Amino acid sequence: MPASAYGQLVALAREIALLTSTEALLSWDQETYMPAGALDHRARQLAYLNGKAHGLATSNAFRRLLDKAEGQTSETPYHAGNLRELRRQHERAARLPQLLVQEESAACAHAKAAWTEARRKTDFTNFAPHLQVLVDLARRKADLWGYTDEPYDALLETYERGARTRAIAELFDRLRPELAAIAQEAVARSAGRKSALPGGRYPVAKQQQLNAEIAASIGFDLDCGRIDTTAHPFCTTLGPRDVRLTTRYDERDFTSSLFGVLHEAGHGLYEQGLPPGDFGLPSGTSCSLGIHESQSRLWENHVGRSRPFWEKWLPRARELFPQLRKVRLNDFLRHLHRARYSYIRVEADEATYDLHILLRFDIERRLILGELPVAQVPEAWNAGFRELFGMTPPDAARGCLQDIHWSMGGLGYFATYTLGNLNAAQLFATARRQRRIAAGLEKADYAPLLAWLREKVHNQGGALLPGEIMANATGKPTQAQWHLKHLRARFLQNAKKS
Amino acid sequence: MPASAYGQLVALAREIALLTSTEALLSWDQETYMPAGALDHRARQLAYLNGKAHGLATSNAFRRLLDKAEGQTSETPYHAGNLRELRRQHERAARLPQLLVQEESAACAHAKAAWTEARRKTDFTNFAPHLQVLVDLARRKADLWGYTDEPYDALLETYERGARTRAIAELFDRLRPELAAIAQEAVARSAGRKSALPGGRYPVAKQQQLNAEIAASIGFDLDCGRIDTTAHPFCTTLGPRDVRLTTRYDERDFTSSLFGVLHEAGHGLYEQGLPPGDFGLPSGTSCSLGIHESQSRLWENHVGRSRPFWEKWLPRARELFPQLRKVRLNDFLRHLHRARYSYIRVEADEATYDLHILLRFDIERRLILGELPVAQVPEAWNAGFRELFGMTPPDAARGCLQDIHWSMGGLGYFATYTLGNLNAAQLFATARRQRRIAAGLEKADYAPLLAWLREKVHNQGGALLPGEIMANATGKPTQAQWHLKHLRARFLQNAKKS
Repeated sequence: MPASAYGQLVALAREIALLTSTEALLSWDQETYMPAGALDHRARQLAYLNGKAHGLATSNAFRRLLDKAEGQTSETPYHAGNLRELRRQHERAARLPQLLVQEESAACAHAKAAWTEARRKTDFTNFAPHLQVLVDLARRKADLWGYTDEPYDALLETYERGARTRAIAELFDRLRPELAAIAQEAVARSAGRKSALPGGRYPVAKQQQLNAEIAASIGFDLDCGRIDTTAHPFCTTLGPRDVRLTTRYDERDFTSSLFGVLHEAGHGLYEQGLPPGDFGLPSGTSCSLGIHESQSRLWENHVGRSRPFWEKWLPRARELFPQLRKVRLNDFLRHLHRARYSYIRVEADEATYDLHILLRFDIERRLILGELPVAQVPEAWNAGFRELFGMTPPDAARGCLQDIHWSMGGLGYFATYTLGNLNAAQLFATARRQRRIAAGLEKADYAPLLAWLREKVHNQGGALLPGEIMANATGKPTQAQWHLKHLRARFLQNAKKS
Repeated sequence: MPASAYGQLVALAREIALLTSTEALLSWDQETYMPAGALDHRARQLAYLNGKAHGLATSNAFRRLLDKAEGQTSETPYHAGNLRELRRQHERAARLPQLLVQEESAACAHAKAAWTEARRKTDFTNFAPHLQVLVDLARRKADLWGYTDEPYDALLETYERGARTRAIAELFDRLRPELAAIAQEAVARSAGRKSALPGGRYPVAKQQQLNAEIAASIGFDLDCGRIDTTAHPFCTTLGPRDVRLTTRYDERDFTSSLFGVLHEAGHGLYEQGLPPGDFGLPSGTSCSLGIHESQSRLWENHVGRSRPFWEKWLPRARELFPQLRKVRLNDFLRHLHRARYSYIRVEADEATYDLHILLRFDIERRLILGELPVAQVPEAWNAGFRELFGMTPPDAARGCLQDIHWSMGGLGYFATYTLGNLNAAQLFATARRQRRIAAGLEKADYAPLLAWLREKVHNQGGALLPGEIMANATGKPTQAQWHLKHLRARFLQNAKKS
């Protein structure tokens, strides 16, 4: 037993992490391999462990140690940062009754299964009662946590510390016309550009081979991680040396699984770069989703859709998929940089992606404000979609049922995707100013870039606020200009420049 | 909260099962998909949950409820059986200090990884320190549990309630000359019989297809279970509707994975046949390993190596593996019924299998008695092997490193394999006396057999003793005659009869 209050608090936080990382395995297994019949028991296991972890995080013992450690002089700013975050987590957790936590955990396990089924049958009505339960839970949580302006703030805080709904809404309002204009012109320029991707089968096993080689080449450690198959790609951390990615395969298009892997490996590199000795502590945990998404989007888009990347990897892809032999690099890049209005967010190109986010943010905010009843979500979705994209989703699977987030109780989450895009562009623009990094990028050697991200972002863990990470790394808080500049360069100039 | 002490005790037992079934997932994942780097954290998770489950099972609350429930009149014999077993489990658990339980759990996680590595490198010295730790732990546990004759009794009791080391040793001593004689003659008769299995590749994907069809056809429910790939096949239950099998694939011989699946599906049918509402209670848990192994061996050998089984399935195998088109049923059966002395237990044919068990039982017993030092295990193994098989294992991977059991702390386990063989033959001989079952067997329709096993064995759970299950089902406790009769019929008579 460590002597100091801080040391004992750390031991308790690590104990909680044993429970939450076990929950992460239960969830990962539910998504990847669990047989359908096992759902009820799985929901009970998750609710039980969740309740235990919550019980420890809100216990008198935890509070007493926190009080005591705060009363002692912090040995380092690092300790002070951990204490500040542990206090924040404790206060937030303590406001939620254990029963609510267990209720939510079980509700999510069932909602996830119901969502999968509803999406398959493209029938919103089967999912609606589950969404109602989760919206009600989210509003109850927001009330218990408290907020200044509106309840959505309290939910947003879960994913993006310090962010405020109104500020994001204002940012999105400013961005909307610019993003819409870029999208419109990009789509117009791409119109009539044919796919450069030849037909024929791209076998899953060969896609897996290529994806693993590429993930390893950007630094993802497959001895401490793996890549599985799910309906909805994700990245999850099951332990300090256990980071698991998933993707999905389309045998007509190898780039679908590949960009899924690049995106999730971006998340995975962040998780693998956290200080492993700090697992379970704020300093060993990612900072926010807006920072997390900056890592995935950076590797997926700024690296993975660049010319030097494919100068290196197209020849390898040609070895695995002979039908690519006649595809020229320029044409392939033009293919990757096509812009189209489409229904599915995760398949959207960079030029139109953020429009999907603006729509979701608006709908979620109104759901939580109580302005939009659950039953009217499909209608509101389709109306908002028409306004932004000029077309109507043909069914709910390509409309409001497409994303997994709500079924996981993840209300308040979506805005962080666009924050991530902004952060990604800002970090990448800053990093490439360094000669070694820029030289590495030119020859698809990503070790210098990764080293910079490790130092500026990954190793920082979560003891700093997102704005502090960005300011320390780039000299400025999150700004939109870099992202807009990147989109214009990629979509509105000669394709050769991108 | 249920009103009666019995009801509250049941609720507590179910809570413990939430923890132990989560441990089962952690272990399953360790064997199937976990990246190597994750080991340390996994060991900590397992030790933590194990400690929590042990804490609950030995708590004052558990004991008080047990005392109180025992003091009240049992409503049914079923309640009385559960109480008797919960008392026994509680007393045994309470004798082990929590620290020892956690120590063992972590030691096993590490030993399993060390064993995998040692077997790969065929180097016993790397595994020896781990085995020493586990033998010491086993002896400490035996001392804490107590025993009348010798410490091995206390370990055996974990796997086979009511069994005694001396009685098994006497049984094995009686069986040894008979088994050796059968093996010798069977091997002699098979000598020079060529393999009827044509060369060429048997692709894993097609093996998986056939295995899944066969598992489903004998009644294994794949909506409440699955089949994965591991170095060492096993069956594990992660919840009342979540039973997972594993096998391994040899692309030169499809029967290797298939008999692995039939064996594990036999275990799986037992688990899927336990009363699902009693999950976590003795009445919802298997009776003993000797009963469990009777189910796996029954389906693997008595069903899976029979003529009617292959009358049905050889045509299907020919569709999947064209090289089988010219193989005649008689030749294929003669191939399946070949007997050979071989080094690896799990690949041994029925005629020689039990000899592998006699060897292990003897070595384990002497290890636990302290008569055999860990360092001398390879030597003792090879000497014993020479005596029984007339040949010396060429290396440790084909000798004392071949089995996973010790690395899982499973000392006291092996004897139940031969008990399982005896029980399988006795149950099968009894069942097939019923006309409906016999008629089903002739046309490879196993529903009547499964219904009988469900009633006589699976639904019984673990509230009865193994001897009671056998006596209720067959009129007699476990006897060797049926197994010997089966081996003689299969190996020492005309192959057509088998």
